[in-house]
Amino acid sequence: MTAAVPEPGLLAPGWAGSPAASATSDTAYLQALLDAEAALTRAQASRGLAPAEAATAVTEAAHADRFDVRSLAERARGGGNPVIPLVADLTKAVGAEYGPYVHRGATSQDIMDTATMLVATRALGLVLADLARVERALARLAAGHRDTAMPGRTLTQHAVPTTFGLKAAGWRSLVLDARDRVAAVRDGLPAQLGGAAGTLAAFGAYGVSEPTALPAAFARELGLRPPVLPWHTLRTPIADLAGCLAFAAGALGKIAVDVLTLSRTEIAEVTESSGGGSSAMPHKANPVRSTLIAAAARRAPQLAATLYGALAAEDERPAGAWHAEWEALRDLLRLTGGAARDAAELAEGLRVHPDVMREHLDLTHGLIVSERLSAELAPLLGRARAKELLTRLAGRTYPEGRSLAELLAEEPELKDVDLRELTDPTHYTGSAGALTDLSLERR
Amino acid sequence: MTAAVPEPGLLAPGWAGSPAASATSDTAYLQALLDAEAALTRAQASRGLAPAEAATAVTEAAHADRFDVRSLAERARGGGNPVIPLVADLTKAVGAEYGPYVHRGATSQDIMDTATMLVATRALGLVLADLARVERALARLAAGHRDTAMPGRTLTQHAVPTTFGLKAAGWRSLVLDARDRVAAVRDGLPAQLGGAAGTLAAFGAYGVSEPTALPAAFARELGLRPPVLPWHTLRTPIADLAGCLAFAAGALGKIAVDVLTLSRTEIAEVTESSGGGSSAMPHKANPVRSTLIAAAARRAPQLAATLYGALAAEDERPAGAWHAEWEALRDLLRLTGGAARDAAELAEGLRVHPDVMREHLDLTHGLIVSERLSAELAPLLGRARAKELLTRLAGRTYPEGRSLAELLAEEPELKDVDLRELTDPTHYTGSAGALTDLSLERR
Amino acid sequence: MTAAVPEPGLLAPGWAGSPAASATSDTAYLQALLDAEAALTRAQASRGLAPAEAATAVTEAAHADRFDVRSLAERARGGGNPVIPLVADLTKAVGAEYGPYVHRGATSQDIMDTATMLVATRALGLVLADLARVERALARLAAGHRDTAMPGRTLTQHAVPTTFGLKAAGWRSLVLDARDRVAAVRDGLPAQLGGAAGTLAAFGAYGVSEPTALPAAFARELGLRPPVLPWHTLRTPIADLAGCLAFAAGALGKIAVDVLTLSRTEIAEVTESSGGGSSAMPHKANPVRSTLIAAAARRAPQLAATLYGALAAEDERPAGAWHAEWEALRDLLRLTGGAARDAAELAEGLRVHPDVMREHLDLTHGLIVSERLSAELAPLLGRARAKELLTRLAGRTYPEGRSLAELLAEEPELKDVDLRELTDPTHYTGSAGALTDLSLERR
Amino acid sequence: MTAAVPEPGLLAPGWAGSPAASATSDTAYLQALLDAEAALTRAQASRGLAPAEAATAVTEAAHADRFDVRSLAERARGGGNPVIPLVADLTKAVGAEYGPYVHRGATSQDIMDTATMLVATRALGLVLADLARVERALARLAAGHRDTAMPGRTLTQHAVPTTFGLKAAGWRSLVLDARDRVAAVRDGLPAQLGGAAGTLAAFGAYGVSEPTALPAAFARELGLRPPVLPWHTLRTPIADLAGCLAFAAGALGKIAVDVLTLSRTEIAEVTESSGGGSSAMPHKANPVRSTLIAAAARRAPQLAATLYGALAAEDERPAGAWHAEWEALRDLLRLTGGAARDAAELAEGLRVHPDVMREHLDLTHGLIVSERLSAELAPLLGRARAKELLTRLAGRTYPEGRSLAELLAEEPELKDVDLRELTDPTHYTGSAGALTDLSLERR
Repeated sequence: MTAAVPEPGLLAPGWAGSPAASATSDTAYLQALLDAEAALTRAQASRGLAPAEAATAVTEAAHADRFDVRSLAERARGGGNPVIPLVADLTKAVGAEYGPYVHRGATSQDIMDTATMLVATRALGLVLADLARVERALARLAAGHRDTAMPGRTLTQHAVPTTFGLKAAGWRSLVLDARDRVAAVRDGLPAQLGGAAGTLAAFGAYGVSEPTALPAAFARELGLRPPVLPWHTLRTPIADLAGCLAFAAGALGKIAVDVLTLSRTEIAEVTESSGGGSSAMPHKANPVRSTLIAAAARRAPQLAATLYGALAAEDERPAGAWHAEWEALRDLLRLTGGAARDAAELAEGLRVHPDVMREHLDLTHGLIVSERLSAELAPLLGRARAKELLTRLAGRTYPEGRSLAELLAEEPELKDVDLRELTDPTHYTGSAGALTDLSLERR
Repeated sequence: MTAAVPEPGLLAPGWAGSPAASATSDTAYLQALLDAEAALTRAQASRGLAPAEAATAVTEAAHADRFDVRSLAERARGGGNPVIPLVADLTKAVGAEYGPYVHRGATSQDIMDTATMLVATRALGLVLADLARVERALARLAAGHRDTAMPGRTLTQHAVPTTFGLKAAGWRSLVLDARDRVAAVRDGLPAQLGGAAGTLAAFGAYGVSEPTALPAAFARELGLRPPVLPWHTLRTPIADLAGCLAFAAGALGKIAVDVLTLSRTEIAEVTESSGGGSSAMPHKANPVRSTLIAAAARRAPQLAATLYGALAAEDERPAGAWHAEWEALRDLLRLTGGAARDAAELAEGLRVHPDVMREHLDLTHGLIVSERLSAELAPLLGRARAKELLTRLAGRTYPEGRSLAELLAEEPELKDVDLRELTDPTHYTGSAGALTDLSLERR
Repeated sequence: MTAAVPEPGLLAPGWAGSPAASATSDTAYLQALLDAEAALTRAQASRGLAPAEAATAVTEAAHADRFDVRSLAERARGGGNPVIPLVADLTKAVGAEYGPYVHRGATSQDIMDTATMLVATRALGLVLADLARVERALARLAAGHRDTAMPGRTLTQHAVPTTFGLKAAGWRSLVLDARDRVAAVRDGLPAQLGGAAGTLAAFGAYGVSEPTALPAAFARELGLRPPVLPWHTLRTPIADLAGCLAFAAGALGKIAVDVLTLSRTEIAEVTESSGGGSSAMPHKANPVRSTLIAAAARRAPQLAATLYGALAAEDERPAGAWHAEWEALRDLLRLTGGAARDAAELAEGLRVHPDVMREHLDLTHGLIVSERLSAELAPLLGRARAKELLTRLAGRTYPEGRSLAELLAEEPELKDVDLRELTDPTHYTGSAGALTDLSLERR
Repeated sequence: MTAAVPEPGLLAPGWAGSPAASATSDTAYLQALLDAEAALTRAQASRGLAPAEAATAVTEAAHADRFDVRSLAERARGGGNPVIPLVADLTKAVGAEYGPYVHRGATSQDIMDTATMLVATRALGLVLADLARVERALARLAAGHRDTAMPGRTLTQHAVPTTFGLKAAGWRSLVLDARDRVAAVRDGLPAQLGGAAGTLAAFGAYGVSEPTALPAAFARELGLRPPVLPWHTLRTPIADLAGCLAFAAGALGKIAVDVLTLSRTEIAEVTESSGGGSSAMPHKANPVRSTLIAAAARRAPQLAATLYGALAAEDERPAGAWHAEWEALRDLLRLTGGAARDAAELAEGLRVHPDVMREHLDLTHGLIVSERLSAELAPLLGRARAKELLTRLAGRTYPEGRSLAELLAEEPELKDVDLRELTDPTHYTGSAGALTDLSLERR
């Protein structure tokens, strides 16, 4: 008997040891398969198609720790899925009297898909809980740094000032978008029940008359949604999972790449709370949480692509497209779950350095406010003259190592202009504060 | 001056000459860029930030046929996007007086992203119109073939009977799922307006005081949604487009792979209305519509992956992630638009051959109903005896070339059983009809 | 202590229980990491940089079963890779005297990348062995069915005849292409040794003077190639692995999709030797090997894409691109290894049904040879007359249920033509036999 | 008649106006299709299967500017590929006498695949020429900056010093790897000739007896390699193109992401020669070449994935897999061609700022050499004492704003140690120089 523990994840510091790893382990899938089988017998009993004792017997037998996951995995080769050997083992475990009520009328895919939905529901719950932690931490950062000015950067270069509050509010906005998409998908995940070719025919042969009653009862037992149609080859739930998980991983990836950039030795505007260290290089505080999130964000899109590709599934059960889903979806759940855990730690512990941000606003010798000066000096000097002046002075800043403010102050025609105001980069953050406030109203 | 015509699409029979091709051509993008510029000036005029005459002047100048798309494309190399040379040309076209009101306060990405949303809105409208055609045709097929029995196939093998009605209803269900996702995304596409680093600061410098009023006015001019935050690096709209388009292409791909299978020379249960022919091989009626849809379904997931990957966009404008979106999104719009056109023709013209389906139900010598016999003979004969009998007789069918019904009829213990009913594959379609009816209630 | 067993692979019937699974398990990676550490100390000892006893001590300690893989995996979170905790544990295991010689001068990536190369070398060896089995079996099939005529199919439709020998020869040709690519990559996999930023500086600090000697000695200890440059962010070996594995999976995927098609109930020209069965549906002999190979072929390209994407790795060690490689490469090795195992079983056991192929050649009422008739009747009748005749008669075949040969035989102007020869589809296989022979000369 | 000009590429500043764009345009493909047709007739004439006059007539007619590419593209919808209408138009253009010798015995895929190989050969030639420019420029940079010390960065943080020479040598090494892979693939690209189902049967019907002679003659006419087998569904050449192009794009992507990082306003160790500017923000010198290369590197892996996925091509011509290749391969050729052009300009114009690099080596208060100090002080002070001392002093550097060298100089026990040497970061570049020299020996 294999112990009920998740795969170690030696190559996966992003998810090893996480709740998402446990929720998606082979053992967790095994339990979900058993949960589906037990629910099916209970649902049949509830409709008078099986004795209540059979439901009890199957439910009692359906514990993962009584089954050998490794043996099941290897015997899955024969028919191409683990449900076939599992039904054999479960039937045996239930015993001669009620064994015939195990899996009655179902097809392997009914159980496999339903188990996948159970695992996904549980894993998405963990993702949502961690996204909520991220969201709360980012709301605090956004509010707390509403007016912390920093350089806005485009194509790697300082452009105009922005605020760290707006940046954190933007991160939060993406996280809320991810939450909304993940929650909507989770709440719609359906049970699967169709029988061999999706017609529910075998259940009819066993006495079911009303086509949707049994699937509905089955879904109810499991807390899943009843399917409209059997979806053996109508893979909407899988594609929706792909989309929301790729979205969530990417949204967290945005935070990660920003933190990675802002953590650079030369930039150092933020620091992860507990950077991974190096004994030989004591100065190194690596942004490890961001690194692992960024790695997940690099993998998720391609895993989602495999799942979207599986939509084109031929016949009533495809030869390959279905089988390609299993590991890809599990990997996506794990990676995103792990990334959400890392993002929660990242956001909750992020240290922000407003003084460094302020210093950097001067790195371009004041040119970071040239856009403002162009706009505001034009009415005073005339557009052409303003432009000429700014271009000329801008050209002197770097060579002379002087700020634009200094050079402007020497211009007689500007002696009545409040240059202190016009050239203060912290006064050129536009609507950053107002936008931050507005966006924080979203819950 | 380049004529306002789409790229020929010599390598793209899937979208060449389609409305989607026109809606996503270089010229269409150019017009959308100009529409965005004109709307920006009008929105500023509506807020008192520009003279009404400037709005008129820009709007009058903003016609794609007055600009040289090839020159713009080549000059886009300099700054990495086509808006920079376009603003220069448009400013010149507007003239000295109102030229300064062109692009005032905006950044290239404001215009580029907004134009992309315009193009996407238009292209998704075409997709939705064709999905509606597909849906209507499939509803007719599903209703018309509600009781047309055919082999259900799993892992390439006959499993149990199903109906063509249920198959068509399933296709329709996927198409409706695609429609819902595409429509939801289309209806939420926002305008983009943030200025150089997303703070709207330049608009403030020009006199805007209320941060959301100008973006809202801009969006209103274009029929887009007002953005909550500038989304230069919060790429929810792009990711949502990726997801709904990959979904739609995959949903149509499901129909295509089924039609390809059912069209095979040996199967021939359906025929495309106007198969592509071959002069040297007059018997060949190639399922060309399905082929081209299947090709699109193979490409879409990877294009979507590129777009999901662009979520991890650093800073206030990323160096590469944004630029990687443009062609990938356009390709996805075109491919899906073309596939929807092909699917409409496919569904509207599909010829179904119920007689061939009926014949194929006998191909397994009646074993296609063995599941039913197992279920229904067990109560009569005892489970063990029923299983033994069926296994033995099944083993004789292929070698003796006789049907299971014939062999069963020779068994004395079954002389009172209505074998005609039990072995008629057209009577073992379970809830296929009822499920078809139910699913057709969805609108 | 975690037992040295691979992950069960409950969702992975394609690789569960396979040699490739063992060769790529967490335990196998752990052993490879330890092999790399031991080799490093031995290499240093061989260059006089460490005492021989240290080399012995590290080598003796470096056994995976003495380490706790789960604990290592979880502690890997701290610094983002498992080498950091492993070095701590190994140093402790080696003891105070020689512990300082563990990992001396190296960086985590030296060990991680080297271990990856060891695991890849071993896994590719398994792939190559199974590809050799596939190749031999296909050579037998090609030779044995050199003249077995069957329908050639294009866009799902019968086109002109071909032979099963040529089809098998084509499969073999792809397998040989895969073999050549995999073998070339395997033979070039380099050890990694560069120290913290790839300059080998720490080794210099410990006394190494000649820059390539230590990496060469290290590589020699492990049977890997010496690196030209440290390749921490020059990921040629990873990209080459991606390419050859995606190729191999795709090559096997071609065989699989052909077998899946030819196994269809209606086609049944080939049968997998031991199809996965279904108790409720005794007629079902599912092509399970092909199904699992096809599933692998659907996943491999996207895994390879993640690895190709990791080429763009910034700095001297990237924050995410490197970490994204680990699981993606392992998955690719496992999937391809499993697919090669399945393909070997598939090819060795494939049952071919020449009689069914022969029957199918008549399915188009002889039109399958219309191309030949066009070519050969034109000189006799004139091009226009030949075309008119063939078009007319072809149009009568399906409606009248008569063969083209019969209808042609009624044409007086053809009474001297050897219609038996011209219309025999088994005589219109062109150069299929000669091409088969030629291709089998390749070794 | 459409003018022979490439698509404008408004959304593609990476390739618009490039030689690669011209070499892969619709018009270029049209010409390649015509070249293939003409070569086929010439090859047949050379084998006595067609009159020499037919070869001349077809060759003379086969000029792209005589055909309407848009009409061909739209008529390609009928049969799913552009060869069908092209053969009709070409036959007509050649006239009644020799028209029958157009396309004789060939199938559309013969012409389409051969044209693709011609286009690829030409485009790869352009890629190789630009890679050679990149390589030369990088060799100059590597040699010129052999001893230019700079911070080595890992996980975004300063680790130990390296040199710009080694970095450039590494870039060059990757470019040479790309060159080798691209050149090897280009040199092996085969012509395609197989007839309807790859048996060459139609050529036999027209009198060809020796199966490889005609394909060899055809290949020779075009400067391509003769195929071993028809490869309609043995897609080795396509997969090899995918691999080498994804490799090349990724290799250039590595350079791009490094330049993007080193160009950041705060780092500014390198500058692109002609950064894209912004009129409103005169300080902005955007690294546009790197940005566009990075964008290409983000797209290439997924395009390659689509092509690898097309290996699993069923039958003698697949319904979709083949059609999915066309645009994906063209995009990959264009993107990589454009990226190579940009990389050449980037490398040739890159400005390097050794003084800034030198300054940055002090950013960590000397901790960048802590690894060296650990190694070299241990023998002097004892390992434990050295570690304790360094840890303590390292902890004082940042708070006190003093360098490690200063603090060490105050330690009496180190008064005889050459701290100037030990703490000079430019003296701790290890084997960077020697590795640079070695790697430059590769040609």
